[in-house]
Formats: sequence, C-alpha cells, structure tokens
Amino acid sequence: MWVMQSLKNTKIAVVGAGAVGCYYGGMLARTGYDVHFLMRTDLQVVRAHGLTIHTKGEMIRLKDAKAYATPAEIGPCDLVIIALKATANPALEEVLPPLIGPETTLLTLQNGLGNEEFLAERWGAERVMGGLCFVCLNRTAPGVIEHFDHGTLSLGEFGRRPAQRTMAVADAFRHAGIEANAVENLITERWRKLLWNIPFNGLSIAAGGATVADILGDEGLRTLARELMSEALRAARKLGHSIPDSFADFQLERSWSMGPYKPSSMIDWQFGRPVEVEAIWGEPWRQGTQAGARMERLETIYRLLQRLTIPKE
Amino acid sequence: MWVMQSLKNTKIAVVGAGAVGCYYGGMLARTGYDVHFLMRTDLQVVRAHGLTIHTKGEMIRLKDAKAYATPAEIGPCDLVIIALKATANPALEEVLPPLIGPETTLLTLQNGLGNEEFLAERWGAERVMGGLCFVCLNRTAPGVIEHFDHGTLSLGEFGRRPAQRTMAVADAFRHAGIEANAVENLITERWRKLLWNIPFNGLSIAAGGATVADILGDEGLRTLARELMSEALRAARKLGHSIPDSFADFQLERSWSMGPYKPSSMIDWQFGRPVEVEAIWGEPWRQGTQAGARMERLETIYRLLQRLTIPKE
Repeated sequence: MWVMQSLKNTKIAVVGAGAVGCYYGGMLARTGYDVHFLMRTDLQVVRAHGLTIHTKGEMIRLKDAKAYATPAEIGPCDLVIIALKATANPALEEVLPPLIGPETTLLTLQNGLGNEEFLAERWGAERVMGGLCFVCLNRTAPGVIEHFDHGTLSLGEFGRRPAQRTMAVADAFRHAGIEANAVENLITERWRKLLWNIPFNGLSIAAGGATVADILGDEGLRTLARELMSEALRAARKLGHSIPDSFADFQLERSWSMGPYKPSSMIDWQFGRPVEVEAIWGEPWRQGTQAGARMERLETIYRLLQRLTIPKE
Repeated sequence: MWVMQSLKNTKIAVVGAGAVGCYYGGMLARTGYDVHFLMRTDLQVVRAHGLTIHTKGEMIRLKDAKAYATPAEIGPCDLVIIALKATANPALEEVLPPLIGPETTLLTLQNGLGNEEFLAERWGAERVMGGLCFVCLNRTAPGVIEHFDHGTLSLGEFGRRPAQRTMAVADAFRHAGIEANAVENLITERWRKLLWNIPFNGLSIAAGGATVADILGDEGLRTLARELMSEALRAARKLGHSIPDSFADFQLERSWSMGPYKPSSMIDWQFGRPVEVEAIWGEPWRQGTQAGARMERLETIYRLLQRLTIPKE
C-alpha cells in the first residue's frame, strides 16, 4: 500500500504550470515537500526569480522553486500532479513515462470528464486519483499566481472508494494549508461540478461573452441554464450518480452571489486560448446520450462551442 | 370582390423602403402602377434622385418615384405592401390607418411567423395577404438597390385558399416582370421557408458569423442544422402542415451550391441592425411547443439569439 513518506522524501512532480499547478504545487513546496515543476513558457522566469503566490494579503516567495524543461531531468516520482489543460492531454503520452515508477500515483486536477480514463487506459487504473479544485486563481504574470478565494480540494480514487492513499494525499495538502477531503465517488463529484460548469461556462461563450450576472439577469439564458442543469442531472442519474434536484436549484441560487464573475472558459476564449470543450461538454454529452438521456440543449451548446472555440488565425 | 383596376387606377403604397420594398415596389412603378413609397432614411435622396435598381445587367432609373414622409400624404390605397422588418411592427399601428380604406388589401412580404396575425388582429383577417420572397437583393446606397438573383414571389391569403384577389395581385407582379404564384396554404409555405431560415440564419449568428459554406463544412454544425430542420418539420406537422422529410433533405442539399453565402440575419447582426428573432425563431418555437412538438435545439438557439442580437452600446 502506497503511503507518503516524510516531507523531504516525498517526491512530487507538477505537470502543467498554470495557475492551478503553481498554486497547489507551490503550497506543497513551501511546506517542505520536494516539488518539481515541469514548465515551458515560464521556465526561465521561474529559474531566475522563483514562484510568487499572492494569497490572503500574504506574498509567498519560493525563490528556489525547482523548475525543469524535461521530465527526464525530474525522473520517477511518488506523486505526479497533472494540471495541464485537458486539451493538451496528448502531450502526456511523452511527458509522463519518465515520471512514472512502480509506485507512482497520478493525480489529475483537470476539469470535466475523461481525464481519469485517459490516464487509466495508458498507465493503469490503480495509479489514478482525481481532484476537484474549488478555487479562484489567476496567473497574473510569468511565475506569479494570484489566489483570490477558496481552495478546497475534493480528492477521490478512480473507480473505487477512498483508500489509505487518498487520506495520505489529502493529509499532505492539509499539511500545506489547503482544505482537502476525500470523496466516496469521484465521478459523482465531477458530475456535481459539471452541473454548474456545463451551463455557466457554456453560456458565457455561446451568448457572446456573458458573465454569471449577465446569464442570471437574462430570463431566457437563466431558463436555459436551469434546463441544461436538468439535462446533466438526468444524464448523471442514468449513469448511476445520485444527485438530488435540490442540488441543481442550490447551484443556481448560489450563483447570484458571484456577480459579474467570468467563468474560466470565457476567459480562455476571450484570450484565444484552448477551451476544454470535450471534457466539459463533449464527454458528458456522449456518456449521457449513450446511457439513454436526452441532451438536446447540451448537444446544441457543444456543437456551437466546437466552432466558436476554433482559434482565429 | 376586390380586383385590381387598370394600371394607373391601382393605388399602391410600400411601407418599409429597404431592399425588398424598393425592388418590388420599384418594379411595379416602372410598369406604370401608381406606387407610393413611405420612407424615412432615404426620403431626401429619393426625392432628389429617384430610385435606382440594378438588375441583370440593366440599370432601371425611376426618377419620379413618389416618396413620402407620412402616410397621411398618401391616403387610402388599394394595396399596401408591407416590407418593414418584423421587429418594427409596432410602428404599423400608427402608419397603416391612413393608408387603409374599405377595400384595402394588406400584403406582408415580411419573414417568418406572426406578421399576418399581427395585421389580421388589428385590421381584419379578410384584408390580409402574405408573400414569400425568394430573391437576392441588397440596398447598396440610399435609393439604390442591387438585384443579384431570383425574385419569385409566392402569394397567399391569410387563413383561406387563393381567391380572385390573389390571382389579381399575382398578375400585377407578373405584369411587372416578376415571377409570382399563388399558394394553397400560405402558412405551410412559411414553414417550408423556415425549414431553411431557422437553421441557417440561426447558426450563422450563434456560431459567431458562419456562412452557409462554414455551416455545411463543419460536421457538428451540419448535423445540428439537419436536426433543427427535423424539429421544425415535426412542429409544422403537429400544426397541420404536411411537409415531407425529403423536403428537408432537399433544402440541405441545395444549400451546398450557395457557397460562402451570408444569410440576411447574419448581415443584419454584423451591421448591428435588428434581427427578426421573434418572427423566425420565437414564434415557431412557441407555436410548435404549444402544439406538443419537442424543440429543445430551437429553444436553445432562440434564447442565445435573443441575447446575441441585443444592440451593443
């Protein structure tokens, strides 16, 4: 059974050094874990100046953050945290093997559906954990992360209940000052999160750049958001995930407090960056319709997003 | 029974002097009918320079086109051709009364559903005719119309079969060199046209500015277009209009020859002009769902278009 060793003896890699990877990896590094960041764009800046995390009025400087250009320089780890965009998953075929030893755990913090399956098919289901990040982050400059709010991680095993390993990883994050809990069914949690991401991230783009307040303030879009939630809810149930109607109502209600918040996909879209269309809309639509759920509204949004998110030349 | 008198004794008003009004009205005026154009934007230019229609290599100049600023200057007519955007219908409440005498026929050449009903509720169903324009036109400058192709008018009575009047109006247009036919069921024809306009005009905007070729060239959008056609087809049938499946296939197939054609709604949207969202999507969705048809994809597109076509400040 896998357990985390003492701080310095737990070797961790972070693949994908955007806001999520740098924040969670940075918090672990700050606590004393041996964290290795695989980077491309920000590599030289982080090597020269380290990583900076602004959080809750505090500035955390990690001057000696270990940044690498290739996975071979890092070598096999105990834990590999995958925080790449899901759209970049094909790159993992080359990136991950040098990081994987006999006992390596792969933890995907990516959005949506299909990422655990991607890892499990290639490197074995028993290695795979997933985490849902409830956090507001922004990478404001190379090597600089702004942490606005929240941070809770919900961690689970792929295809099985939490095990000793799940608790050990959660303990490590808690040790680093991050709220972390273990969830009974990881994919149920993913569907619960999708219940919000499908309508709000989707409509934020499909409605031409609409914030949460814009969506809620437009009667037609608000109705559509709730109907998309219902479609996702029915699909999740067909797939064996028990989520009550009241949870959808709660997700909608709590959105009012977000005001003019821009869902992450909207920001990606506005900056011309890849949007995780398959993970958030395509895979849920395919899995739901295969299970016999009707998802015509999701299908419509999905097909529009496929086109709308093609990078403009 | 209403009949058209001799050329000079048939008094015609054209309300809405965009491309459609100027083209059909201009062709009638050129033939000798007594046509009165109610204008706003182009009034001074047309008074000074007349109307110009470029058609099939020919330039038609109507130097003495009669243009008016108010309906009171025109007075009651035999035939009032309504070629305003459907979004401007509320203005008809003030514009039409001075043009209407005991025997006046109202002919709407507007798009989509609901325009005949609008007229019938206010001025009596027996007055109301509708026409579908199959024509490629553009207003290239004030008082200048470019006629690219086609021109056929399909004319019908509101809520009844063609009558002597229908034939007389069709004859007048034919006399003016325009192909015109009388249709058995006007609203069936409107649904047949909507079978194309709902998907292609709708997706051209919702997909962020997509031409017919763009829609057909994207597998997801092409699939969605065909599914929207099927929804419209089922709605039309629930409402008693018999349209075969093969007609939808035909509408899709013939679209390939259009190439990078921009549906009119897309042009309106790109120029920030009002889009006939209710006539083309809202009314068909309401009528179809009330009749028990499922139209989730149309509903999704409709709600997105409502938001996307709000004029930007």
